Amino acid sequence: MPVSQPVSSTKRADAERNRGKILTVARAAFAEPEADVSMAEISRRAGVGMATLYRNFPGRRELLEALFVAEVDAICTAAAEGGEQMPDTRLLCWLRQLFAFFASKRHIASELLKHSDGTEPVFGGGRARVIAAGKPLLAAAQQAGEIRDDLTIEQVLDLIHAVATIQVDASGVEPILQTVLDGLRVVSIAN
Amino acid sequence: MPVSQPVSSTKRADAERNRGKILTVARAAFAEPEADVSMAEISRRAGVGMATLYRNFPGRRELLEALFVAEVDAICTAAAEGGEQMPDTRLLCWLRQLFAFFASKRHIASELLKHSDGTEPVFGGGRARVIAAGKPLLAAAQQAGEIRDDLTIEQVLDLIHAVATIQVDASGVEPILQTVLDGLRVVSIAN
Repeated sequence: MPVSQPVSSTKRADAERNRGKILTVARAAFAEPEADVSMAEISRRAGVGMATLYRNFPGRRELLEALFVAEVDAICTAAAEGGEQMPDTRLLCWLRQLFAFFASKRHIASELLKHSDGTEPVFGGGRARVIAAGKPLLAAAQQAGEIRDDLTIEQVLDLIHAVATIQVDASGVEPILQTVLDGLRVVSIAN
Repeated sequence: MPVSQPVSSTKRADAERNRGKILTVARAAFAEPEADVSMAEISRRAGVGMATLYRNFPGRRELLEALFVAEVDAICTAAAEGGEQMPDTRLLCWLRQLFAFFASKRHIASELLKHSDGTEPVFGGGRARVIAAGKPLLAAAQQAGEIRDDLTIEQVLDLIHAVATIQVDASGVEPILQTVLDGLRVVSIAN
């Protein structure tokens, strides 16, 4: 059906754009403290009708899951970038992104927990993908002798995740995060 | 009443001993995974009658609070010891004790939460006392130039507490804790 193709691809592009707008708006909305933004409010802010919103995401849970998956995608993409950097810089920069991801996803994850039993594959799958993405970064930095080799990628993720659960403001958590990243380096003690 | 004094002091010693036995038994009982030990079981294990148990601790909550306070006492006492050690060694050893305290008190604290609303002074008071005990240790190690000076004692406690929440076995958490303690040191990066 070659004549219908342009129309169909325009429709697809429109649908993509709408979906992207909804996700962008929802990400910002759920990042607000004590976020309890309704689907109607998300539809209003994204400038799309309720029918379009529900065609894309049949419910709040599907929207939250899509946001979560998009965040995991971004973290995995980031792990594949920065190949021109030194292995330790590359790992530590990625861990900073991961920290921001953990800190921001707290809202999404806790919202999502209200709408599922927490054992859904969307959670477990996220962790497995992040581990697979981070593993070669850690291995390269350890092989270069720059990062301590007594930790696995799982332990590093657990550590960064734990720091992200600390309930202080951003300026308070920065030196804590820096302490942890410094602790990952192979160092000679000054004293 | 000088004649009644020896009897009274023997009674007091007995009462002290019973209280001590109950606390020791209860500490071990609540440290068991999925601990849900009854008051009757604690009375049995401690070898004291139910009347004695309830005279000391009118309920499960009072027993848990007494355990919590005893743990905080031990941490504060530990902070005052080891004055002959180097300031950084003294701080880092104390933080290891604090880590063990956080890791073990999780059971007590979570049990206690079931029996109170979590805003009781026993919690807040514990934190304030631990902060007061650790503050001079951190200050001494920072002044000696051995420990990074961009962290407050509150931030250090938050960090150690966060590591204690990581759900891995003891052998898995050890290198994570060591990473964090290494990160606290003033170092020269090897690379």
